[in-house]
Amino acid sequence: MKRIQLAQGGGGEETTGLIKGLFFKHFSNEILEKMEDAATLHVKGPIAFTTDSFTVSPLFFEGGNIGKLAIAGTVNDLVMAGAKPLYLTCSFMIEEGFLLEELESIVLSMKEEMAKSGVKIVAGDTKVVPKGGVDGLFINTTGIGEIVCEGISAHNLKAGHALIVSNEVGNHGACILAKREELDLEMKLKTDCASLWAPVEALFAAGIKPLALRDATRGGLSAVLNEWAEASKVGLAVSEKAIPVAQEVKGICELLGFEPYEFANEGTMVLCVEAADVEKTLSVLHRFEETEKACYIGTVVGEHAGKVVLETPWGSHRFLEPPKGELLPRIC
Amino acid sequence: MKRIQLAQGGGGEETTGLIKGLFFKHFSNEILEKMEDAATLHVKGPIAFTTDSFTVSPLFFEGGNIGKLAIAGTVNDLVMAGAKPLYLTCSFMIEEGFLLEELESIVLSMKEEMAKSGVKIVAGDTKVVPKGGVDGLFINTTGIGEIVCEGISAHNLKAGHALIVSNEVGNHGACILAKREELDLEMKLKTDCASLWAPVEALFAAGIKPLALRDATRGGLSAVLNEWAEASKVGLAVSEKAIPVAQEVKGICELLGFEPYEFANEGTMVLCVEAADVEKTLSVLHRFEETEKACYIGTVVGEHAGKVVLETPWGSHRFLEPPKGELLPRIC
Repeated sequence: MKRIQLAQGGGGEETTGLIKGLFFKHFSNEILEKMEDAATLHVKGPIAFTTDSFTVSPLFFEGGNIGKLAIAGTVNDLVMAGAKPLYLTCSFMIEEGFLLEELESIVLSMKEEMAKSGVKIVAGDTKVVPKGGVDGLFINTTGIGEIVCEGISAHNLKAGHALIVSNEVGNHGACILAKREELDLEMKLKTDCASLWAPVEALFAAGIKPLALRDATRGGLSAVLNEWAEASKVGLAVSEKAIPVAQEVKGICELLGFEPYEFANEGTMVLCVEAADVEKTLSVLHRFEETEKACYIGTVVGEHAGKVVLETPWGSHRFLEPPKGELLPRIC
Repeated sequence: MKRIQLAQGGGGEETTGLIKGLFFKHFSNEILEKMEDAATLHVKGPIAFTTDSFTVSPLFFEGGNIGKLAIAGTVNDLVMAGAKPLYLTCSFMIEEGFLLEELESIVLSMKEEMAKSGVKIVAGDTKVVPKGGVDGLFINTTGIGEIVCEGISAHNLKAGHALIVSNEVGNHGACILAKREELDLEMKLKTDCASLWAPVEALFAAGIKPLALRDATRGGLSAVLNEWAEASKVGLAVSEKAIPVAQEVKGICELLGFEPYEFANEGTMVLCVEAADVEKTLSVLHRFEETEKACYIGTVVGEHAGKVVLETPWGSHRFLEPPKGELLPRIC
């Protein structure tokens, strides 16, 4: 069982060996292989630029691992800005002694996930820190995309607009929590982690221009809805019955006292569209596995500016407060 | 003494509080403040794109800290590609319990360093991991620059070209090592950490087009020279007497058995220029504090392809081998 050694992060021969033998082998493309200090790119039109560091624990979980997450997460941040994902940088911070086999399996997941949107890693960085300096592995990915649909923004919401969620909510958070707490509930719970370029590209192609678009990561559905309500100074009226939540997620939430709407997602987005576009939006989303459970969940209203109002299954109403407190550390 | 709490990385209200109260306060610019998932940029011409994660230990050292390093390091990678540094993303990975005061002092250093090249942070990410998950603080910065001098490359070297180093070599490595080993040699040793855009911009303005340009970070001068010799299939003949090394660095190297040419630098570059441009290049570099000690150190030759040949102070010759082994972990 080969393990990562300090020398592989020192900048000398062993570092070159790791980079060529592992990263270039799987991420291979002509820009990366020039191996200069910076990649040279030609991008038309306005650019979207976004970064994310991934510190998830455990590194492997049902339906994915930190590598898949690191690609899908940054790809989705680009897509949410109306951009076609083009290029990524990728930086590994690896603990001395990390299993090379695990690293390769993570790198292979990254390769597989990149193929789904066509994004390419064009520059990278590798640090190896002595044992105890980092818990296993952190990955930073930073992305550039070409904005093909301009003007998507949290500030666009107006009364009458419709709210759609693209998948069940809370799967990623519940999956990580279950794995961490070693819950064995005979569940088939797995992360929703997925790159969302394909369904969003199809929406654009169908002439749908979302007013707002956001992946519901840390802070979950609740964070997105509250941020939108505040940014646009509108109320959001959402039906709890309409929000898709897997039985297993409901179970975990009841067991441990969490709110599924605050659980992180890694391949689930919230869309705000014109009321007239709801049907068409849903029919496009339903063509893709990662968004086949998309639902209309509510509407933008004039009253309760800055607030999210949930209609409970019993017909009563409550405010969905913005998430606060510790939530789940190292969820992504 | 306020400390960073897990909740400040959870994606909820406390995270927004940290971002607005600390990062936006000091990094303020109109793109960043839109606070969308991705920044929207307009960049002319070809783009340079580069990433670096900083894991240096200790976080504070003579002449700088991890924040200054995180800005200068990525700025320099852009500059070395012939690019004017424009935009950065910045991702903090913070250990729970980290002193807020130290974080603010790091952020202030970043702000100060950004002013030297005019680069701006336009997107970011904040993760807080439970105690023990990371040793203090890691920072990733990823940069975009507009390439204003095309064609700089490690593959351009031909016999007759001249080699210049912009400063004493080994200061950063020696400074970190001295601090880590608690060496107290009554030395005034400090890091060379500096952004190199100002002197390089002045070179471009003076009509100098470097053939190759590289900051001598991990692996030091030795790594750069060996990489160039290999990439261009040429020999490099370098005079050891001509390479500037501070007395204190020589002392540390003799004491601990290191080679100063393998020590990392964080604001020192190697330039390959036409022989006819040497004088003009040096006269431009000498106008800037960070490059005032620039020296001509040797020449590209036809023999010894792929090798670096050092002429020792005693007139004998030896190969300068590419660095290998552990070198210094967590040097940057």
